[in-house]
Amino acid sequence: MTVVTKHVQVVTEGENSVIDLTQEVQRRVDESKLTSGLATVFVSGSTAAVTTLEFEPGLVNDFPEMLERAAPRNHAYDHQNMWNDNNGHSHVKAALVGPSLVVPFVDGKLALGTWQQIVLVELDIRPRTRTIVLQMMGE
Amino acid sequence: MTVVTKHVQVVTEGENSVIDLTQEVQRRVDESKLTSGLATVFVSGSTAAVTTLEFEPGLVNDFPEMLERAAPRNHAYDHQNMWNDNNGHSHVKAALVGPSLVVPFVDGKLALGTWQQIVLVELDIRPRTRTIVLQMMGE
Amino acid sequence: MTVVTKHVQVVTEGENSVIDLTQEVQRRVDESKLTSGLATVFVSGSTAAVTTLEFEPGLVNDFPEMLERAAPRNHAYDHQNMWNDNNGHSHVKAALVGPSLVVPFVDGKLALGTWQQIVLVELDIRPRTRTIVLQMMGE
Repeated sequence: MTVVTKHVQVVTEGENSVIDLTQEVQRRVDESKLTSGLATVFVSGSTAAVTTLEFEPGLVNDFPEMLERAAPRNHAYDHQNMWNDNNGHSHVKAALVGPSLVVPFVDGKLALGTWQQIVLVELDIRPRTRTIVLQMMGE
Repeated sequence: MTVVTKHVQVVTEGENSVIDLTQEVQRRVDESKLTSGLATVFVSGSTAAVTTLEFEPGLVNDFPEMLERAAPRNHAYDHQNMWNDNNGHSHVKAALVGPSLVVPFVDGKLALGTWQQIVLVELDIRPRTRTIVLQMMGE
Repeated sequence: MTVVTKHVQVVTEGENSVIDLTQEVQRRVDESKLTSGLATVFVSGSTAAVTTLEFEPGLVNDFPEMLERAAPRNHAYDHQNMWNDNNGHSHVKAALVGPSLVVPFVDGKLALGTWQQIVLVELDIRPRTRTIVLQMMGE
């Protein structure tokens, strides 16, 4: 059993951009030479999130739109009193979806469905450079 | 430290069916002979989700109903342009809840509360045969 | 590779209290002497949740308020028929956010952002003593 950790920098295009991380994660699993174990995808920061989504142009709009209905940008957030940075909605959406995803791999392949991609969702109101921590644990 | 992976097929009864996986997961932990570690429950596919819920007839309705309010079936989803398959709401709900759950086990027992069950939530608009990847890692 | 499990009791102040667990989790990682691996934070029970949030007085209100809009307390929940305990909204919110969070640690430090804390969210309608299962796995 070993642990392999990689830090990956991803530049996002601003609010509600959705980035497909699947190939990057699979490549790091390949490089680790591990055949069976867990791949953890974690985004450092409180205004982005990680989940799975069929990565196609429609859902890449639909998912952020649903989050916008749950936490509208123009709602009054108490967070505004702290930083005056107009991203209270970004924080609550990120906490709801979560920063962490754990995907098993078997025979060296991520156990994803064909139409299921690992995605980073940028929820902050401006482009950001995100640090993704990928940790492969297994044998 | 070892890794044990099992694939479990589950036939669902269609949209919003909630299936209790707790006994199945505990049985696989028992079979693994591991006493301390992590059980990861992952559903392959982008229109189902895994979480914990008190598995009783009321909440089995209440939880999908809340998701329906967050992502109504009759809303216009851009996903419709891709596949014309009327399940855009299924995809966004699945991405929101997430496909993965990690539960520690201690002395061979899942660390769940008494009224806390591991559940698969079918969000697609028809019955599906789901592949659950169970991975036990520990010692 | 080893596994270290700790049970931590946390007394909450009732509905929508948000508790910062970051220092406690980091301290347990320190005590484990592990340098690289996964810290899993799991709450036993079906009316509380774990996620990350910038822990500041504004967001500590904003996040529960968003959940209240998604699952209002005064909505009619079928769960009421089971237990008559007026916390159907607590259960569906907890299932939505989820009971489990996995955070990698590297060089003995949790891979969190500066403004990203690990939080327990109490969603039940009264103060509770919560059992958090912390499991560190790594080398």
